[in-house]
Order: sequence, then C-alpha cells, then structure tokens
Amino acid sequence: MKPSVYIGIDLGGTSIKMGLVDQLGNILYTLESPTPVKAGYHQVLAVFSQMAEKLFQNNKYEWKDIIGVGAGVPAFLDQQKGIVIEAVNLSWNHVPLKEDLERMWKVPIMVDNDANAAALGEMWNGAGKGASHLICLTLGTGIGGGVIINGDIYHGANGSAGEVGHMTVRHQGGRSCNCGRKGCLETEASATAIVLDALEQVKGVSSGPLKEEYDKTGTITAKSVVQLAQQGDFLSIEIITKVGRILGSTLAQMCYLLNPEVIVIGGGVALAGKVLFDPLIQAFNNAILPRVAENTSIIPAKLGNRAGLTGAAWLIHRKNIGSREAKGS
Amino acid sequence: MKPSVYIGIDLGGTSIKMGLVDQLGNILYTLESPTPVKAGYHQVLAVFSQMAEKLFQNNKYEWKDIIGVGAGVPAFLDQQKGIVIEAVNLSWNHVPLKEDLERMWKVPIMVDNDANAAALGEMWNGAGKGASHLICLTLGTGIGGGVIINGDIYHGANGSAGEVGHMTVRHQGGRSCNCGRKGCLETEASATAIVLDALEQVKGVSSGPLKEEYDKTGTITAKSVVQLAQQGDFLSIEIITKVGRILGSTLAQMCYLLNPEVIVIGGGVALAGKVLFDPLIQAFNNAILPRVAENTSIIPAKLGNRAGLTGAAWLIHRKNIGSREAKGS
Repeated sequence: MKPSVYIGIDLGGTSIKMGLVDQLGNILYTLESPTPVKAGYHQVLAVFSQMAEKLFQNNKYEWKDIIGVGAGVPAFLDQQKGIVIEAVNLSWNHVPLKEDLERMWKVPIMVDNDANAAALGEMWNGAGKGASHLICLTLGTGIGGGVIINGDIYHGANGSAGEVGHMTVRHQGGRSCNCGRKGCLETEASATAIVLDALEQVKGVSSGPLKEEYDKTGTITAKSVVQLAQQGDFLSIEIITKVGRILGSTLAQMCYLLNPEVIVIGGGVALAGKVLFDPLIQAFNNAILPRVAENTSIIPAKLGNRAGLTGAAWLIHRKNIGSREAKGS
Repeated sequence: MKPSVYIGIDLGGTSIKMGLVDQLGNILYTLESPTPVKAGYHQVLAVFSQMAEKLFQNNKYEWKDIIGVGAGVPAFLDQQKGIVIEAVNLSWNHVPLKEDLERMWKVPIMVDNDANAAALGEMWNGAGKGASHLICLTLGTGIGGGVIINGDIYHGANGSAGEVGHMTVRHQGGRSCNCGRKGCLETEASATAIVLDALEQVKGVSSGPLKEEYDKTGTITAKSVVQLAQQGDFLSIEIITKVGRILGSTLAQMCYLLNPEVIVIGGGVALAGKVLFDPLIQAFNNAILPRVAENTSIIPAKLGNRAGLTGAAWLIHRKNIGSREAKGS
C-alpha cells in the first residue's frame, strides 16, 4: 500500500508551484505554471485545479491518497479562517481561499503567507531541520520573514509577526520606501536595493562588468551583481558587502529579542554565498553579546524555491500529526 | 478550609521581597529585607528561611498551605535545572538554587530571571492581564526585557530571549556601554542614561532645578529628573522626551518581529507617565506600519515593584495548573 501524501502550493506573483510531498517533507513530484494574475482569483483557482489533475499523471497517486493541501500565499491573511485579507500583487481582497479550495477538492486545506511557508519548509526539511526556535529571512524583491517558536510558526497579535521588511535599519540617509518611511530593511538590503546601489555605482565608473551590462541593457539585475561578486568584481563585492553588513547588524537586534537557535537566510540574494555571509556574520558578531549568540547559527537556506511548497505541505502535516497524537496512535 | 497559596520571591541586588500570593495572583502578605550581598549565597538562603517563617506570623497560613515557591533572580540562569549560572550583582556563579531551596523547604521550587518574572507578573495580574503575546520592558539602572508567547515566558535557545538592553539604538554618537559596544538601549534610555544626560545638560545652564540639585548634592538622580519633568521643568522634559523617542522607535523594531498584543513598560523611569509615553508613542507610530501595530497596545506597568514577586509565584502557578489539567480536574 502506498503511504498517504500532502499537496503543497506556493502561489507567487509570477508562478504557481505545486507538488506532492511525503510525510517526511520530501517533494515527490512538482509542477510549475504561470500565475494568471490579470485573469483574477477564480482563474487562479481553475489553474490550481488543472495543475492538481496533471500532478497525478504519470505516477501512482490519486486524490484518495491526499491527506490535505497547504498553500503559501503572498498576502496578509487571517490564517485561522483561511481568508486572504489583502494580496497586493494579486489584487485579491478578502477572498475565502480555504473555504473555496475545500469545496473544490473535498480535502482539508490550510493556508499561510509565503514567508511563513518558506520558514516552515526550511524547519521541516531544510537548513533549520531539528530547530525549535528559528527566524527565516527571504531576500528577494522585498524581504519576507517568518518566526518559528516551539516548532510552529508564530503569527502574533494579528498575523504580522515576522514582517521585518520595514524595520528601520538606516536612520540617516536611507532610501525612501513605498511604505512612506525611509531606510527600511527592504530598501537597504533586498534585491531591489542591490539594483539601486548598482545603478548609483555605475554612474561613477567608466568601465567594468557592471558598467558594461548597464550600457548594453540599460539596467542591471540583482542576479548579475550577485554573480559578478562571486566572480571577484570589486564593485559588485562592495555592493553585496554593504547588504551583508546591514543584514548582520539587523539580525543581531532580532537575536537580542528572540534568541533563536537558527537564522536561515534564503532568496535569490542569499545565493551570493560567502561574499554575503562573511560580512554579514562579522557585522552580527560585532553587534551581539557573545553569550546571547552562543547557541545561534546563521546559515543559508537549503531548499531554494522549494521551501514555500514544502512548508505549505507542513501546514497539513502539523494538522495530521496533531490529530493522530490526539487519537493516541 | 483556607485555599492553598504560593510564595513568590523577588531577589534584587539591594533587597529581597517575599510574599504570599493567592491562586488569582493577588499578594496577601509581603515582606522586604536587605540582600546580604557581601555575606554570599548561603547567607541569602538563610535570610530566605528567616523571611519565610516571618511571613507566616500574624496570619492563618503555614507551610502545609504552600503549593510551592517561585523566585526571580537578577541572573543568567538555566531555568529548567534551576541553576544560577551567573549573577554579576550577587557574585554568584553556578549555584544550584532550585535544588538547595527544595532541600530547605521540601516544596516545589521554580526559578527564572527577574525581568521574566516581572513580565509574568504583569501578564498574570497587571497591565497585560489576558494577553497571550506580550513584551515587558523594565526601565531601571539597566533595561530588562521579558517576552511572553502563547501565555508563557519564552526563553529562546539559551535563556537569553528578551535581553534587549544591548540592542544597538544609536549608530552614531552613542555612549560607550560596559558591554564594549556603543549606543546600546541601556546606555541611551535607562535611568543611568537619564542621569548622564542630566549631568551633561546642567553643564550648559546657570540656573534651574536640575542645576540646583547638582550644586547641592554633586549629582542628579533619575528619580528627580522624572519628578521635575512631571512638574514641568523644561530641561527635564527634554531629557525624558529623548528617552521616550528612543524607546518608541526601538519598540517598533520589536513589534515588526513579534507583533505582540501588549507592550508593558515598567520600572522607575516609567513612572514619568505622560511625559515619557507621549513622545514614546509618537516615535513608535512614526516607525511602524499601521497594520502591524493595529492590535498592539503600549501601556505602563501596573504592579510596580510587586511585579517580580507576583510573576515568581506564577512560575509555580503554571506548574500547579499544568498538573491539575493533566489530572483532568
């Protein structure tokens, strides 16, 4: 008899990832499809439905093997009721996602925001495996955060716990943020910040690989700054070093409050590796009391873009484990 | 039949407070005695013993009515084993406090650090009553913090959670801290910071109440700055306002990460009231996304110097409630 499995969904502004996940957090099969953002909420549900049917093709699984479906959504939501209160990038407002998916699929559904799902994925089967207290930052266009306490995601008073992107990290001379403030973590240390830093820097130089990219394409991507930094380009290293320093001292502030076992850093920017992590850890150590950090590790994420999908499946895994424990089996 | 009660102990560097606490968190009887710091650990235990006997005089309670004893200690400790790892102000190193008190009193003993005990007291029967997620700051000579999550104190990876006194709050021009860094919360917003600010300020003035106090006594106390600010002294208001602003923007950073329901501000400096809280809340609101703070209140502590004793008793209350729940009664 084949063991029952979960479906995990990672809904992004660009693509939808869906996968079958086993009870140890391993992804068995996975699919990806563009998000029909403009077509709206119901079209996204229709794509979910088509993807799920496709997911069962060419393997032995069918709906009766599915314990439930978890979804990570780029949104502010009421996680308990499963209502997406606001998903800016999707233009969703107050949609009953959990209820609609339960009606469509007739299996238990759990939803949470994408940053929390990524944190849970890394805890379950990634860089934070085995940790009970964990902070996970995802460095992308913005900066998402998830806080895990006692082995479960911590939501706080209204689900905003871990929304660290707007922490003030630069009190003087910080960039304007679309939140209306200045010097937010997101404006100083995200992929967007790297692009802005790079565009400022190339103004002052007459040659070099960043300048060449700019002259050729009219812009610079964060991905190329990361890659050039790894290849030793001095200007790119400088940009990534600055981001690393800001992250390191900000993580120290978080560590005083939360004293986590593990801080996991994921997202595209984290792929910079040593070029990012060396200055990050140095800045962290400069800002933290050694005793407070003696049981805290800062490590790169392991699951890459599979973290969200894995963590979404964990939302159902927790429910499943919980109900089995309650039955005493 | 009289109901069983708890004993709470608040051990400070100056005095020991001990009280009988009922199962609702009300203090029935209380005693205070100087801490024999120089006489050492065993003399402190002897004073504990004498105080407990005194506590039963002139009332109906005796040892058989005591469910257990909780103690808050100004120390870094292994809360589970009940070992005080380091209490700088008491010169204690690795003392088995829980074990020794259990041998002495033959009742269950629980210990935690003083800032955590204060947070628990305010949650149980003070300003944070009814809240599940709470941050409590105690503004004294230093700044202590306690983090409550899901109705219980959160210790973190090694018991350092909530040690917010050394968060960096001033990146340029901050005062040197005895931790070796600069611009720590403690050096910028504690009673000690207020004294240093006042001493700096009086240098530049030729008259006024702070100057008079300085000329009379050769120093200025934080208490008098607080009182003069309440009475309308401009210089004192300026000093307290600055402290309020620093606290407000720092609390916003904490709120992004933890999204608490309540932030309780206690300790001597908090007695300043409106003079402190108005600029504090203004700075907080300037630094926080409205959505993140919409379910968060910032309020002054209610229990004053009884918070630690009350929260220490809660450590036993939790154990007691837990075991009753386990028995199904």
